[in-house]
Amino acid sequence: MDDPVYKVVELVGTSEDSISDAIDGAIEKASRSIRHLGWFEVTEIRGAIKNGEVDRYQVTLKAGFTLEGGDAG
Amino acid sequence: MDDPVYKVVELVGTSEDSISDAIDGAIEKASRSIRHLGWFEVTEIRGAIKNGEVDRYQVTLKAGFTLEGGDAG
Amino acid sequence: MDDPVYKVVELVGTSEDSISDAIDGAIEKASRSIRHLGWFEVTEIRGAIKNGEVDRYQVTLKAGFTLEGGDAG
Amino acid sequence: MDDPVYKVVELVGTSEDSISDAIDGAIEKASRSIRHLGWFEVTEIRGAIKNGEVDRYQVTLKAGFTLEGGDAG
Amino acid sequence: MDDPVYKVVELVGTSEDSISDAIDGAIEKASRSIRHLGWFEVTEIRGAIKNGEVDRYQVTLKAGFTLEGGDAG
Amino acid sequence: MDDPVYKVVELVGTSEDSISDAIDGAIEKASRSIRHLGWFEVTEIRGAIKNGEVDRYQVTLKAGFTLEGGDAG
Amino acid sequence: MDDPVYKVVELVGTSEDSISDAIDGAIEKASRSIRHLGWFEVTEIRGAIKNGEVDRYQVTLKAGFTLEGGDAG
Amino acid sequence: MDDPVYKVVELVGTSEDSISDAIDGAIEKASRSIRHLGWFEVTEIRGAIKNGEVDRYQVTLKAGFTLEGGDAG
Amino acid sequence: MDDPVYKVVELVGTSEDSISDAIDGAIEKASRSIRHLGWFEVTEIRGAIKNGEVDRYQVTLKAGFTLEGGDAG
Amino acid sequence: MDDPVYKVVELVGTSEDSISDAIDGAIEKASRSIRHLGWFEVTEIRGAIKNGEVDRYQVTLKAGFTLEGGDAG
Amino acid sequence: MDDPVYKVVELVGTSEDSISDAIDGAIEKASRSIRHLGWFEVTEIRGAIKNGEVDRYQVTLKAGFTLEGGDAG
Amino acid sequence: MDDPVYKVVELVGTSEDSISDAIDGAIEKASRSIRHLGWFEVTEIRGAIKNGEVDRYQVTLKAGFTLEGGDAG
Repeated sequence: MDDPVYKVVELVGTSEDSISDAIDGAIEKASRSIRHLGWFEVTEIRGAIKNGEVDRYQVTLKAGFTLEGGDAG
Repeated sequence: MDDPVYKVVELVGTSEDSISDAIDGAIEKASRSIRHLGWFEVTEIRGAIKNGEVDRYQVTLKAGFTLEGGDAG
Repeated sequence: MDDPVYKVVELVGTSEDSISDAIDGAIEKASRSIRHLGWFEVTEIRGAIKNGEVDRYQVTLKAGFTLEGGDAG
Repeated sequence: MDDPVYKVVELVGTSEDSISDAIDGAIEKASRSIRHLGWFEVTEIRGAIKNGEVDRYQVTLKAGFTLEGGDAG
Repeated sequence: MDDPVYKVVELVGTSEDSISDAIDGAIEKASRSIRHLGWFEVTEIRGAIKNGEVDRYQVTLKAGFTLEGGDAG
Repeated sequence: MDDPVYKVVELVGTSEDSISDAIDGAIEKASRSIRHLGWFEVTEIRGAIKNGEVDRYQVTLKAGFTLEGGDAG
Repeated sequence: MDDPVYKVVELVGTSEDSISDAIDGAIEKASRSIRHLGWFEVTEIRGAIKNGEVDRYQVTLKAGFTLEGGDAG
Repeated sequence: MDDPVYKVVELVGTSEDSISDAIDGAIEKASRSIRHLGWFEVTEIRGAIKNGEVDRYQVTLKAGFTLEGGDAG
Repeated sequence: MDDPVYKVVELVGTSEDSISDAIDGAIEKASRSIRHLGWFEVTEIRGAIKNGEVDRYQVTLKAGFTLEGGDAG
Repeated sequence: MDDPVYKVVELVGTSEDSISDAIDGAIEKASRSIRHLGWFEVTEIRGAIKNGEVDRYQVTLKAGFTLEGGDAG
Repeated sequence: MDDPVYKVVELVGTSEDSISDAIDGAIEKASRSIRHLGWFEVTEIRGAIKNGEVDRYQVTLKAGFTLEGGDAG
Repeated sequence: MDDPVYKVVELVGTSEDSISDAIDGAIEKASRSIRHLGWFEVTEIRGAIKNGEVDRYQVTLKAGFTLEGGDAG
C-alpha cells in the first residue's frame, strides 16, 4: 500500500465579521470540491478599511488534503 | 493625473478583551488623523500576562492610506 | 542586585472553539507550574479539519517569565 | 450570499526579454483557463545565463482568483 | 511560439523509512496525473514520533511542471 | 556636531505601465514634502489583474531621508 | 476536561553517519525523560568538516509533547 | 477611556564609534519631537568601511511611542 | 557510546549598560543551573526607552548545552 | 566522473537606467573572469535617490557557476 | 596573535543518489583548493525530476574555513 | 565607462573581548587582500561559552567591495 501523500492549496477566506469566520468560510467552500481536507495553517491576516473601520477581514491559509486518484496539478 | 501613491504606517493596537478589539482600536484611533485608510496587515500578535491570564493583547499592524497633498515624512 | 533574566518557552494551546481559547488554555496550564509569566507572542496559527469544518485550533506561542532560583535547563 | 473566497496559485513566467514580459506571459497563459484572476505577487526573480548574458528571466509569482463553483483542489 | 510557463504545486510526501522515500513517494504519486514535472524544492522536514522513535517522516516540497493546455487553477 | 540620523518611510507606488514607473512615482510624490531623500529598497512587487492582463503594478518600497529639525513621529 | 496543551523543546542531534541518525539520536535521548513526544520539525542541518570530509552531522529540531502535570518551565 | 495605541517609526542611527552610540543617537534625536518613546528593536546593523577600517556604524531600529492626539500619518 | 545530543534554551538578558552586559548576565544566570553550556546565538536586540534615552537593553539569545542524564522537557 | 558542483557568488550590479541594466552589468562583468556562469537569483533591489529622483539602481544577485579545477575559496 | 577570521563560501553539490552524496561531493571538491574547511550549513534542498522520478539532488550549502594569508575576495 | 559592480563576501570575525572587535578583526584581515572594501552588514551574532562565561564572540558579516579587473569567482 502506498504511503499517504498530501496536497496543499492556498486560499483566502473573507468575512465582514471576524477572523474566524473568514477561516471557516474558506474551509467550508473548499470542502465542497475537496474531500479529506485534514489541516490548515494561517499565513497572513489582512483586511480592507472603510470609513475608519474594518470593512472585511482577508485571511490567507494553506489547507492540506489526502491526494487520492485525482489530479495533482 | 498622477498614479496613486500610498503610505504605510505601523501601529500597535491593544485590548484587554480580544485580538479583534486591538485591531479595531488601532484603526479607529489612526483614522482620526488619517483620511482614506484603505487596508491593513497584521504583522505580530503578542500580549501581556498577569496572574496566569492574558492581561492585554498587543497587535502590530501595518495600515496603508492614499498619500495626497500632505506630509509624506 | 542582578539584572532580571527571562526564560522563553514554546507552547501549543488547542481549542475546539476559538484562537483566543487556545491561547488562554496554554497560558493557564503553563502558569500552574511557572510563576511570573510576563508576556507571550503568537508564532503560528494552525488547525485540524474534520468533515469540512475546523475541528480544533492549534496556536503556537512563546511565553516569557522571570528566571529566579530555579532550573534554567 | 457567501463571502467571497479566493484561491492562490503559484506560477513561473519566463521571457528572454524582460522581467515584465515574464510576468505578463504567466498571467496571460493562466487566464486562458482561470476566470477572474484578480491580483499577483512576485516572490522570486531568477534567470538562466548563457555566454555571459541573461538568457531567460524566470519570475515566480502567486496569482489569486475568485473561487466559484469549480474545483478547489 | 509562447515562452514556457510553469505551475508550482505544494505536496507532502510521507514515509516510515527515510526522508528520501518521502520525497520519492510525493513525486511518484504526483506524476501519475501531472506530465512534465521538472523540479522540486524541499520546504519543510517534519515527522511523527511514536514510542520515542520516528514513526513517519513528512516532507513538504514544491514541485514545478510545464503548464500546457490544461487547467491552471 | 550630531551624527546624522535617518528616518525610513514605507510607500507603495503604482503604475499601469511598469515596475520602474511605480518606483519613480512613489519617490517623486514623497519628495514633494520630504527633503533629502537618500535611498530606497523594494520590499514587495504586486499588481492588480483585469481581463487576464496586468492592470496596475503596486511596488512597496522603503525610503530613507536625513532627519533634521522636523517631526520624527 | 482540559484541552490538550503541548510544549515544544529545541534539540540538536549529532551523528558521524547520517542526517537520519542525528534525528533518531536526539529523539531517542529526549524520550528517556519526556513521555508522549508526538512530533518533530527539522529547523537546521549543519555539520563539522575534518580533512575535507563530513566529520559529524548536527541537526537542530523542535520536538513537541503533551504537557501533563509536570513542570512547563 | 481608550485602550492605548502605539505608533512605530523606523530610524537609522549612525556613529563613528560604536553600535551603542548609533542607537543612542537615533533615540536622542527622535525624542526631540516625539514624546513618550517607549521601546526600540534593532533590525539591522550595517556600516561603512574606509581604508580597511569601520568608518561609521549604521544601525536600523524601530521605535514605538504612545499615539495621543497627534497625527498618526 | 552515544552521540552527543544538545538542548537549546531561549533566554532574555537585560542590562542598563550595554548589549554585552545583557548577554553576559543571561549566560551567567543560566550557568548556575545548567552545566556544560557550550554556545549561544543572539536572535533579537530590543530595549526600553525612558525620558528619551535607552533605559534597559533586552537581548534574546538561544543557548545550547550537552544533554546528559537530566530532564530534556 | 564527478557529479557537478557549483559555486555561488554574490554581486551588486548598478545602473542609472533600469533594474535590467544593473543585472546585465553584474553578469557581464563577472563573466569576464568566471567561465560557465549558469544562473542568477535577485535577492535585493535598492537604489540611491538624488534631487527626488532615482539616481542609480543597485541590484544584489547571486550567480552560480560550475566549479572546475579552479580555486573554490 | 590575530583572532581567527573565517570565510564562508556558498556551494551546490549534486548527486543522482542521495542528499548526503550531494553534500559530500561539494565538500570533497571544495577541499581540493581550500585548506581548513571547518563546518557547513545546508540552506536549500532541491532537485531535478525526469520521467516522474528524482533525477538529481541539488543541495546548497555554506562552508566556512579559516582565512589565512590568502585572498579573501 | 562601466557602471560599478560590487562583490559581496561573507566573513566570520571572532574576539574574546567584544562584538566590535570581532567586526574590526574580520574587516582588517579581509582588507589585507581586498582593496576598496566599502560596506558591511552583520548577519549573525553567536559565541562560544566556557565555564559559564562568553569565551569568544563570532560575528558573521557580509562585506562589499568594488569589482575591478580581478577574479570575480
